[in-house]
Amino acid sequence: MNANFNAQQILDALNSVLPEHHEFLPLHEPSFRGNEWHYVKECLDTGWVSSVGKFVDRFEEELAAYTGVKRAIAVVNGTAALHICLMLAGVKGGDEVLIPALTFVATANAVSYCGAIAHFVDSEESTLGVDPGKLLTYLEDIAEIRNAECYNRHTGRRIKAIVPMHTFGHPVDLDPLMETCQRFHITLIEDAAESLGSFYKGCHTGQRGLLSAFSFNGNKTITTGGGGAILTNNEELGKLAKHITTTAKLPHRWEFNHDMVGYNYRMPNINAAIGCAQLEQLPHFLVAKRNLAERYSRAFAHIPGIHFFSEPANSRSNYWLNTLLLDEETAGQRDAVLAVTNDAGIMTRPAWTLMNKLSMFASCPSMDLAVAESLERRLINIPSSAIL
Amino acid sequence: MNANFNAQQILDALNSVLPEHHEFLPLHEPSFRGNEWHYVKECLDTGWVSSVGKFVDRFEEELAAYTGVKRAIAVVNGTAALHICLMLAGVKGGDEVLIPALTFVATANAVSYCGAIAHFVDSEESTLGVDPGKLLTYLEDIAEIRNAECYNRHTGRRIKAIVPMHTFGHPVDLDPLMETCQRFHITLIEDAAESLGSFYKGCHTGQRGLLSAFSFNGNKTITTGGGGAILTNNEELGKLAKHITTTAKLPHRWEFNHDMVGYNYRMPNINAAIGCAQLEQLPHFLVAKRNLAERYSRAFAHIPGIHFFSEPANSRSNYWLNTLLLDEETAGQRDAVLAVTNDAGIMTRPAWTLMNKLSMFASCPSMDLAVAESLERRLINIPSSAIL
Repeated sequence: MNANFNAQQILDALNSVLPEHHEFLPLHEPSFRGNEWHYVKECLDTGWVSSVGKFVDRFEEELAAYTGVKRAIAVVNGTAALHICLMLAGVKGGDEVLIPALTFVATANAVSYCGAIAHFVDSEESTLGVDPGKLLTYLEDIAEIRNAECYNRHTGRRIKAIVPMHTFGHPVDLDPLMETCQRFHITLIEDAAESLGSFYKGCHTGQRGLLSAFSFNGNKTITTGGGGAILTNNEELGKLAKHITTTAKLPHRWEFNHDMVGYNYRMPNINAAIGCAQLEQLPHFLVAKRNLAERYSRAFAHIPGIHFFSEPANSRSNYWLNTLLLDEETAGQRDAVLAVTNDAGIMTRPAWTLMNKLSMFASCPSMDLAVAESLERRLINIPSSAIL
Repeated sequence: MNANFNAQQILDALNSVLPEHHEFLPLHEPSFRGNEWHYVKECLDTGWVSSVGKFVDRFEEELAAYTGVKRAIAVVNGTAALHICLMLAGVKGGDEVLIPALTFVATANAVSYCGAIAHFVDSEESTLGVDPGKLLTYLEDIAEIRNAECYNRHTGRRIKAIVPMHTFGHPVDLDPLMETCQRFHITLIEDAAESLGSFYKGCHTGQRGLLSAFSFNGNKTITTGGGGAILTNNEELGKLAKHITTTAKLPHRWEFNHDMVGYNYRMPNINAAIGCAQLEQLPHFLVAKRNLAERYSRAFAHIPGIHFFSEPANSRSNYWLNTLLLDEETAGQRDAVLAVTNDAGIMTRPAWTLMNKLSMFASCPSMDLAVAESLERRLINIPSSAIL
């Protein structure tokens, strides 16, 4: 008896959920059925398209209100947000920053921009994100505290921060992670790029980190074309984040003075205009995505050797990117499923290549990554647009 | 007899050129009277707003065609363009990069992003940009060539590149500068952020540098909201620029592999859509700006102690930002002019604070900056929108 599926069964299950389609169905397709056109037209009519304008302020205020953080700073994209989060958390050249091996490359790149070194940690299967228990055991082994700072005993480098990523919108188990961060004097920064609309124990993701990074790329739950945001409850850091992402210019009627090396990371007003319209529709998008996830869950419930990934305990996920997990025994069929589904015009995708396997990060320190490696072999993302 | 003006005369001359106005007249106001709405609506209707889309390709192709370079790569802004130009030119941590002291802070910031050190050079009054003659004399004094590389005798650091900036759209005297670059093995990168539509000896700015950076910020001759571009005649560098600004992802049907630390610098499709519409109107904008400059030139022709800055010999400028220069003897009246004009609702602005005077660059090496310092004291920018 073979408790196993074949690729055609997966395709049939997907087709039972997805609408009939003649064109290629992508993983994500944004929807602009709200006030996008109205707000964008207002920008064009008034000439306020660029670095200053009311939609940037409004987008920042509404984002802060929705997520329950004190300050949101709109920037050009999630990568820029991560970069500034790390800088403002005090990450310096030569520091190590703990990040999951299973993440999008932006997390690791942002560490590199600071001249710091990524240090890879394993994931847990229940959240797809950083495993707090395994991390604790690992730090007890390799870390030592000197002058209220954490050092890697093996490399001698300071471990300044950790950047858990809420994978595909599913919240990491933040409580035990924060406990470990406090005990080891490691700063928590949330990579919430994928988790707008996701809640951990009733709190929106991004609330617990000293700073958090969000993304509004075209493939995200809401989009601004390209865009991101830095969120923080620390007023001082919030001010500094605004200052450093807008070339660190000192306010003056006409003088051009800057007091630090700043960045040109501000979100243009026209992109923020789209963001404001999208935020209005976020509750509707979340309902639609949850509904889609439930339909997937039912469609895959009785296929042996594979299951639909559901939100972790204590969390309410945005189901940004829907995920199938093959059993370890059926992982060998992953590529057949990818081929059959993509050939049939339904986009599916494996997990990102683990960061430790990319050439530029191959020499970075790493803990045992057994679970991330297993997830990498077994994971398939499937179409997730709210309009489905 | 006092061959001098008073601030009221300057205000009167400005008012003689500018339209009657009830609101504050900014230095720049973009104009969206072409196909902007049409193209943006197409993005929203088709869902192609983000990192991939036909307007990005079209904007890049049309920009390359207009400027006469082989390859243009659209990015999020001019600062990002400068950063990548420097990286691809081989600027490394600890190198020195020659830049004018009289420039916008982005030029110096981009050098810092590479871990390199800005080295300030003086400007000449005829172009407002790098003085090639003074630079040559300076390099003959401080530079030595070892293994076909240029070193600063005093600091021991390699001088890898120079980034002349075409100030307010007026082309630097590129020919003698290139000769000096060749003799001293220094790579030329053009900061053409302000000079779209400006030609040096019949060639569009940005053609001579190994790589060049353009900006389409809201205040530029054409705008994409926020945006910039890298231009190069080197096909290999062009390909690499596209690769590194789009997270260095290797093309594959579904795999996510990246082969270097990349950046998320791509211009969103919706911003490129605006850019395409703006490019169509560029010839019209240039005529309007030239006309405005001629009217200013006449209005200030007979006022003693001040003159309107006209394009350098051998160049055709875009007159991006119109400029008044006070005589050294009347420089003391600059702040009175700034106050009277801004109080009257006409925005005017002095030169940027020289880079060597900003705290974060105060310890950078510098040649004598007598001309830049004089220009800083004497320069006033006046409203320059094409719609005036």
